Amino acid sequence: MTTHEILIAAQSARQPLALAGTDTKNQALEAMAAALTAASDEILAANRKDLEAARGKVSDVMLDRLALTPSRLTDMAKGMREVAALPDPVGALLRQIVRPNGLVIEKRAVPMGVIAIIYESRPNVTSDAAALAIKAGSACVLRCGRDAWQSCHAIVEALRRGLVSAGLPGTAVSLIEDTTHASANELMAADGLVDLLIPRGGAGLISACVRNATVPCIQTGTGICHVYVDAAADLEMAVRIIENAKTSRPSVCNAEEVCLVHRDVADKFLPMLHTALVEDRAAQGLTPVELRLDERGAAIIAGTPASAQDFDTEFLNYILAVGVVDSLDDAIAHIAAHSTHHSDAIVTADDKAAARFTACVDSAAVYVNASTRFTDGGEFGLGCEMGISTQKLHARGPMGLAELCTYKYIIHGSGQTRGGAAAKLQTPCC
Amino acid sequence: MTTHEILIAAQSARQPLALAGTDTKNQALEAMAAALTAASDEILAANRKDLEAARGKVSDVMLDRLALTPSRLTDMAKGMREVAALPDPVGALLRQIVRPNGLVIEKRAVPMGVIAIIYESRPNVTSDAAALAIKAGSACVLRCGRDAWQSCHAIVEALRRGLVSAGLPGTAVSLIEDTTHASANELMAADGLVDLLIPRGGAGLISACVRNATVPCIQTGTGICHVYVDAAADLEMAVRIIENAKTSRPSVCNAEEVCLVHRDVADKFLPMLHTALVEDRAAQGLTPVELRLDERGAAIIAGTPASAQDFDTEFLNYILAVGVVDSLDDAIAHIAAHSTHHSDAIVTADDKAAARFTACVDSAAVYVNASTRFTDGGEFGLGCEMGISTQKLHARGPMGLAELCTYKYIIHGSGQTRGGAAAKLQTPCC
Repeated sequence: MTTHEILIAAQSARQPLALAGTDTKNQALEAMAAALTAASDEILAANRKDLEAARGKVSDVMLDRLALTPSRLTDMAKGMREVAALPDPVGALLRQIVRPNGLVIEKRAVPMGVIAIIYESRPNVTSDAAALAIKAGSACVLRCGRDAWQSCHAIVEALRRGLVSAGLPGTAVSLIEDTTHASANELMAADGLVDLLIPRGGAGLISACVRNATVPCIQTGTGICHVYVDAAADLEMAVRIIENAKTSRPSVCNAEEVCLVHRDVADKFLPMLHTALVEDRAAQGLTPVELRLDERGAAIIAGTPASAQDFDTEFLNYILAVGVVDSLDDAIAHIAAHSTHHSDAIVTADDKAAARFTACVDSAAVYVNASTRFTDGGEFGLGCEMGISTQKLHARGPMGLAELCTYKYIIHGSGQTRGGAAAKLQTPCC
Repeated sequence: MTTHEILIAAQSARQPLALAGTDTKNQALEAMAAALTAASDEILAANRKDLEAARGKVSDVMLDRLALTPSRLTDMAKGMREVAALPDPVGALLRQIVRPNGLVIEKRAVPMGVIAIIYESRPNVTSDAAALAIKAGSACVLRCGRDAWQSCHAIVEALRRGLVSAGLPGTAVSLIEDTTHASANELMAADGLVDLLIPRGGAGLISACVRNATVPCIQTGTGICHVYVDAAADLEMAVRIIENAKTSRPSVCNAEEVCLVHRDVADKFLPMLHTALVEDRAAQGLTPVELRLDERGAAIIAGTPASAQDFDTEFLNYILAVGVVDSLDDAIAHIAAHSTHHSDAIVTADDKAAARFTACVDSAAVYVNASTRFTDGGEFGLGCEMGISTQKLHARGPMGLAELCTYKYIIHGSGQTRGGAAAKLQTPCC
């Protein structure tokens, strides 16, 4: 089927999903998980074809991302059941207003309709995204990378069998057949057919979506995350937080990339940082962190001289840019100029400094005395997530089930009409 | 100043506004209202220049929209004070999560930063929009139509004097000097300098923004609003609702444009509708409504034969497209195909039909037994509004102060780091 035909077919799933109750959706998720397990052999066979085609063309890291195993399939099915266990976001009463004229106005969470997700080579995104979309009452249209297509196709075929066995239309989950740029561009411009587009991938994909999408789109994000060590910081705590934020998983978006230190504590703190991130790690056989130091930092400890570019780079590696600042406000200004507005932290024992930092730093997650690595749906207690939004409209930070819904106003009356007198009490907007 | 220079200058207002408390903002609004009144003479003089330049070039309706009077200026100042009286949306605790590891996660409403508004020839939008933006803690950059520029400039000069007298930067409210398409396009592409763009104008402006904007943008909307008269409707109530929805103010976005009638009641209902909208109005010296009837409707009452286009037109006039449908689901399908997802209503005494209609009709406001004309911030009890959103991301329906804010997560810890064991309990997203 063409991309357009798939999008048209997905429309037919809107109404059944909008009318489906929590039990129906949960039964469907259970059936989808069971179908995934039942189809293990064919999914693994499809995955072997993808791996054979990719071998020699992509890095080992990419091959590992692409590879499925019986244990990974079990985790995928488990993930779907975890989504079934989460509260249903649809129908939540967000606000109720009873007007003097008797109108009862309910603001209720409702499904988006059709959610499109563009992703790359991790086949498990297929079942994760489908589970979240179905639980949120929306059909999903998935567009994976070419390397993963056979695996994702086999997964979607299984998920569809599960949907149908639970009485929901198979068109509620679709995989785009075309894996060229053309289909991604078509999704970005599918006005009226895609209610929400979520690109999950590298900076190139995200910026192409921002530039080209005419359908509603959520920017998920790159993270140039900062930890600022204030003059009033507990320096040992600061070292522990930075070690965790930088080294516990350097390849992810909530890992720290930049450390800023107040000049008053730089002389004492930077040697502590060097010991922990460089010497101690080397002594323990762990990868030492390469410190890229600004001039003032380089006057205190050993490291690589930082270029200006190093303060605007998402290293995703054992590299940390380090700068010395004159004041809290200088740290705030640096973060305003260089952060990707994902997650930024202050370490301080000074409540006033913490309050100023959290008011002025304009990021999805702003931490006081904790690691940036906590920015995650699971760690926030929101359940599974579709990604981390770094934009300000609609959803910011981890996008869980609630953020995959929209809302509408449902107004019950008994024949109310808008009157002349009442209407004139205010400046009419409409 | 160039548009870019104005946008750069507006950045300097972000931090003072983010730190401004409710009292400061309210005092600024009061000072801005007072400054507006104090500058009446110069604003009215500027307005006379705009009117002279426009006379003969634009319609009388447009001249009326453009015209300011002492009484309209008084209303504008009153509108600003009404915004001051509304609750402060900034800082609202939207959710609090305390995690087992002791992290306290607060989801709080925070300012957008810089809100840009593109509008046309109504000078009062200048003070309305500025008041809402300031109360929501954001700077605003205003881009009015060429016809209104002198008036808007005089208004902004007054508002800035008010801001400065209250200790807030004048750059918190700016007017773009260039009124050509170039400045609108520049605002649409001002990534990193505009946090939210709100186009308030005709369909051409809105669709240009949807096509071209790379900054976050809210579609405010055209309204092709439907009233569906169900088989189980109280037909007299239906007539009253449609008369109100169609004729109380035909030029606005929440006015009805299309009436759908269930075939079982069409024979009885359509003559009642004709009497009320055509004959009775003519007898009272009111403009009769032109009924544009589909074939089945035309077989029952007199009127103009409807073209297919009539069911996709926002008439904004005393014209109503009328169609007969076979079922509730046919009405729902018609609305899905033709509505602009603004406001749609069902008239019925059947609770099941009402529930199916409200679940399946995918519009910002869905009414049961009430006029679509209530879709308005004031009528909903939300206070003043910046416009009616017809999109699904972020804000849907009336955009009040809450919808002009974003949120962020503020996390307080005592040195927490993300641990290996806890992290492995769940599928890692990041």
